[in-house]
Amino acid sequence: MFNAQGEPHVTTNHIADELEISPGNLYYHFRNKDDIIEQLFARYEERMDAALATPSERLPGLEDIWLQLHLIFECIWDYRFLYRDLVEILSRNRRIRLRFARILKRADDSAHAVMRGMGQAGVMRATADELAATATNILVIATFWLNYAAARGDKDEQIAIRRGIVQVMMLVAPFLRDAERVHLNTLTQAYLD
Amino acid sequence: MFNAQGEPHVTTNHIADELEISPGNLYYHFRNKDDIIEQLFARYEERMDAALATPSERLPGLEDIWLQLHLIFECIWDYRFLYRDLVEILSRNRRIRLRFARILKRADDSAHAVMRGMGQAGVMRATADELAATATNILVIATFWLNYAAARGDKDEQIAIRRGIVQVMMLVAPFLRDAERVHLNTLTQAYLD
Repeated sequence: MFNAQGEPHVTTNHIADELEISPGNLYYHFRNKDDIIEQLFARYEERMDAALATPSERLPGLEDIWLQLHLIFECIWDYRFLYRDLVEILSRNRRIRLRFARILKRADDSAHAVMRGMGQAGVMRATADELAATATNILVIATFWLNYAAARGDKDEQIAIRRGIVQVMMLVAPFLRDAERVHLNTLTQAYLD
Repeated sequence: MFNAQGEPHVTTNHIADELEISPGNLYYHFRNKDDIIEQLFARYEERMDAALATPSERLPGLEDIWLQLHLIFECIWDYRFLYRDLVEILSRNRRIRLRFARILKRADDSAHAVMRGMGQAGVMRATADELAATATNILVIATFWLNYAAARGDKDEQIAIRRGIVQVMMLVAPFLRDAERVHLNTLTQAYLD
């Protein structure tokens, strides 16, 4: 309901109606709407933490990064109500605000780790400042891409997710070795067609 | 009031209270809250259109782009209520949705024009696909940077705006000629200190 109608438009009464229970019965399980959001946030958090885990046994290739971005974008899509009204939801609830900040920190660490791995594998070259700026831009694009697609009027969510992944990959592309840049270009074309 | 409290929290009754007039008197001037938002949007639109105008008499240098980004970010800051609840506001009002889509299109054209100008001046080199992807990323970063800063808990708006400009410039940096890349780096350091 939050995803379909937007979190601000869904009241606890709507939720009770949809569940065919009384508002009193709903309040027996949840203190208020923010309590429901916190429960949903816990599930989101678990899934995002899993998506952000970096495999450490070997250096990541372009396909690994692509797959990881897919998991991240699908998680954002499934909990898009959080991202649609992000500032509003965070401004209301201090606990969710701190937990979301932790996820951003973790995503930043993960982006750094993946790019450092590519540096070690010799397929990427960037200064520390370039790495930091690119990691931040990756986070902003991933966090707000679906909002941007909605503002632009994109209808198909699968195409929107694919375009988002390509936009993130294009942030990294200029720092890749020529061979990987060509490889990325082939992957991108195949993916968007 | 929209900027300070968030648009969803401000009702026409609050606005009438603040103006020390009756709700009936307010309705004499504005049909409803969305009518007020449309009037504000018209002012925002005029200012953003001016900020997006590209000077055509000469090729733009890094300082010109920096100044233009400043005008754009300050306009976004002054009308931040629009951006804070962007998807919500656009989903409610078809006219504003179409007008915002036009601004995005205009911003995309402007980003393309500036980067093409830098290509003609020989200070930037990028393929058509790289230009298009970079223009889109510039739009997403500019549109949502202040939301990202809020989600991250950044307090000082002037620092947030400066960081946003630097993040946009870092999208263009990898495509610059070495001399301009060094120049940009000097500008960035001076700007953030």
